[in-house]
Amino acid sequence: MENRSYKIKMNGNGIQTNGIHGNGIHTNGINGNAVHHVSVKASIHPAKLKARRQRWNVKPSEMAKNTLNPIRAIVDGMKLTPNPDKPMIALSIGDPTVFGNMPTDDKVLQAMKDAIDSQKYNGYAPSVGYYKSREAVANFYSEPGAPLEANDVILTSGCSQAIELAINVLCNPGDNILVPCPGFSLYKTLAVSMGIKVKLYNLLPEKSWEVDLQHLESLIDDRTACMILTNPSNPCGSVYSKEHLQSLLSIASRYCIPILADEIYGDMVFPGCTFHSLAPLSSDVPILSCGGLAKRWLVPGWRMGWILIHDRNDVFGSEIREGLVKLSQRILGACTVVQGALESILNDTPQEFYQSTINFIKTNAEICFSELSTVPGLNPVMPSGAMYLMVGIEMEHFPEFQNDVEFTERLVTEQSVFCLPATAFEYPNFFRVVVTVPEKMMVEACERIREFCARHYRPRSQDSNELDQ
Amino acid sequence: MENRSYKIKMNGNGIQTNGIHGNGIHTNGINGNAVHHVSVKASIHPAKLKARRQRWNVKPSEMAKNTLNPIRAIVDGMKLTPNPDKPMIALSIGDPTVFGNMPTDDKVLQAMKDAIDSQKYNGYAPSVGYYKSREAVANFYSEPGAPLEANDVILTSGCSQAIELAINVLCNPGDNILVPCPGFSLYKTLAVSMGIKVKLYNLLPEKSWEVDLQHLESLIDDRTACMILTNPSNPCGSVYSKEHLQSLLSIASRYCIPILADEIYGDMVFPGCTFHSLAPLSSDVPILSCGGLAKRWLVPGWRMGWILIHDRNDVFGSEIREGLVKLSQRILGACTVVQGALESILNDTPQEFYQSTINFIKTNAEICFSELSTVPGLNPVMPSGAMYLMVGIEMEHFPEFQNDVEFTERLVTEQSVFCLPATAFEYPNFFRVVVTVPEKMMVEACERIREFCARHYRPRSQDSNELDQ
Repeated sequence: MENRSYKIKMNGNGIQTNGIHGNGIHTNGINGNAVHHVSVKASIHPAKLKARRQRWNVKPSEMAKNTLNPIRAIVDGMKLTPNPDKPMIALSIGDPTVFGNMPTDDKVLQAMKDAIDSQKYNGYAPSVGYYKSREAVANFYSEPGAPLEANDVILTSGCSQAIELAINVLCNPGDNILVPCPGFSLYKTLAVSMGIKVKLYNLLPEKSWEVDLQHLESLIDDRTACMILTNPSNPCGSVYSKEHLQSLLSIASRYCIPILADEIYGDMVFPGCTFHSLAPLSSDVPILSCGGLAKRWLVPGWRMGWILIHDRNDVFGSEIREGLVKLSQRILGACTVVQGALESILNDTPQEFYQSTINFIKTNAEICFSELSTVPGLNPVMPSGAMYLMVGIEMEHFPEFQNDVEFTERLVTEQSVFCLPATAFEYPNFFRVVVTVPEKMMVEACERIREFCARHYRPRSQDSNELDQ
Repeated sequence: MENRSYKIKMNGNGIQTNGIHGNGIHTNGINGNAVHHVSVKASIHPAKLKARRQRWNVKPSEMAKNTLNPIRAIVDGMKLTPNPDKPMIALSIGDPTVFGNMPTDDKVLQAMKDAIDSQKYNGYAPSVGYYKSREAVANFYSEPGAPLEANDVILTSGCSQAIELAINVLCNPGDNILVPCPGFSLYKTLAVSMGIKVKLYNLLPEKSWEVDLQHLESLIDDRTACMILTNPSNPCGSVYSKEHLQSLLSIASRYCIPILADEIYGDMVFPGCTFHSLAPLSSDVPILSCGGLAKRWLVPGWRMGWILIHDRNDVFGSEIREGLVKLSQRILGACTVVQGALESILNDTPQEFYQSTINFIKTNAEICFSELSTVPGLNPVMPSGAMYLMVGIEMEHFPEFQNDVEFTERLVTEQSVFCLPATAFEYPNFFRVVVTVPEKMMVEACERIREFCARHYRPRSQDSNELDQ
């Protein structure tokens, strides 16, 4: 039997007829403040007759619908059926731990176990993290040009939450942010879900992925709330020179745009190259530097991230700081066990651990680069840090494939090698190689990519004409 | 020297004069798609002359400004200067671990250390959590009436993120949610920050904090997106009967309102009382049940929470599930170490641990209740679970104090005992006592409260008149 009940409302008081109960009319109390229930008389205003939901109709929110993950969207749309005769080699996952060849340091594990045994870290921490842990991060990242105190540090549930809080505190719906292209897809995922527009600025492969400064500058308007810089870069593995960072800072300074510096790969640069954190290079541009334990300490799953607030020009002032604290109270931050271990993780991890990690990555990157740079139709760009390498595809020489997605899809079908098509980073005709896999796998993968390209490479038509003559 | 540069834009291409460079006019490429930089000619349209930001002006976003924490707002506004002659006793903090008298079980600690030593849990987990961990939660909480599979479980960074995701997936700005009064303040904090209206429905102290069903029903309108039920209750410590839960479900069913069941205190009920989880009591109302390790396992800092999706009527369907998965990808969820330990924590923690925890809380609650119920001017309400007890203040008998905030403030000044004024839960003239403190402290605190009330209690005027005669 259909539910014919309806409701009439007026003046915050109400009267209700309910067909289901069949108990005629009964008045029921309504109290806007709702501090105590009250019983009130009510009169009927048919004019205000109000229909109410008659059947179930629960739909996800706009924000849920607008939370889009381009990598998932593209990868889920690909037919990834490996060649049964060849074991799968995934060069697609930006997680250095998946192959078990890159464990974290024993000191890091010991610090965690000590934190657990102490039973001091079971309870709630302040929403921005324990003061002592924030102080440890401040001391670890302080530089002469950019000193940090505990109050300049906000601990977060991974670098993802650090980026989310930073974008959230700086931007309103309708604002826009400047995002590197190619770049880490999370920036856009978060911004779009919050109604913030994304303007992609170009990186130049021929200049080791430096920013196209003119293009960046041309995108700025009066609704530009924030510029995101990723250094070292995912997916490019590029590391910017001091001079280039200064050029970027001068644009931010000229247009008064605060910077979100994603420095999660900070210090992960190859020997001979230097990482310059952004903050010490400017005394006037306010910077939120986002980082965490994920990459350098090889524990991305532990969700230990942070925001370093650099504001020597007092542009953020107390308001942005308070805004970050308020936002941190919505779901609280990082696991207290990791927070309790943080001071020891930062101070007791031996230098050899960092060095052997980066040396291993460099060796793999060099193998991959030297191998693929001799493959006709491919143009790898040698990285200087992080754990990625981007490879350009001369699509005109691979007429069988529409784009990088089809190219990498077929690479799986034939060679059981999966590289992420750079369309996932809004940068078609490239693919990204993760260089943290075991060396043997790296070598084998490169050989298979060479075989794949040799099989599908077609010389340009004019060349073939020449051959015909 | 002031920067006089300005910009002229048209048709997505631009031309720029820059005073600082003093290099006259140069054209620079702009590319909406920003996949590759281009160089274009441009002509000048003074009509479209556009000013740009000339000075720094960075303000926190509306969302940051609208993220309000009532407890902080009230507590930070109080003058909390303890009596130097009496050691401070804080009955205000909803964290059972602060006094060190309630450690978690050794099995829980061992499970964590095993997870760390395995080195299997350093990398990223799926954004909704490891399948195996989700399966463990599903098995632990499955009931004949409400079976769960791994895919019905979403692991989150604490119950706070579970609640955030649940509200976020169900509600759009402008919608409203029904929230218990008194109730946990986070619901409102989250909703308001997202532009979602909050409608407070009354709980009835004289009925052991049951819901005022008529009032609840009267608040429902066609923008009501979700009903939040907290059982057992923070701050009331009440536990609802099966019949009362069924009445609540029948309203949700009649008006087609999905329920967010905050069951973080589930199973934390005193001997002789039974906890009924909501889901098995309804086959048609879709329910998102939020929980976690925080309270029952006494590790709130570890940030291990979950959403249990109960949808036997297939109202949520795949859309809400996909919405939750999408939202979980914004910052990812719980620390992988805790996820790795979860199966063992759930299955190997001895029953004695749960029992001794609840027995201790019950004893303290009984001490507090029996002590305070003989104090003129106070009306404690005996809880049946959780770890709280609400005490009504007959304000007319304490004319020195305007309200519960002043009352509790002075209780600190004179007796060094701090209880949270229930105004923090939008429920004036009550205060909340946390009953997880050591027994001695509980006893001492009650004596001091008695002394405080005896000193400030004033009989009603007519009584005093009688005395005068």
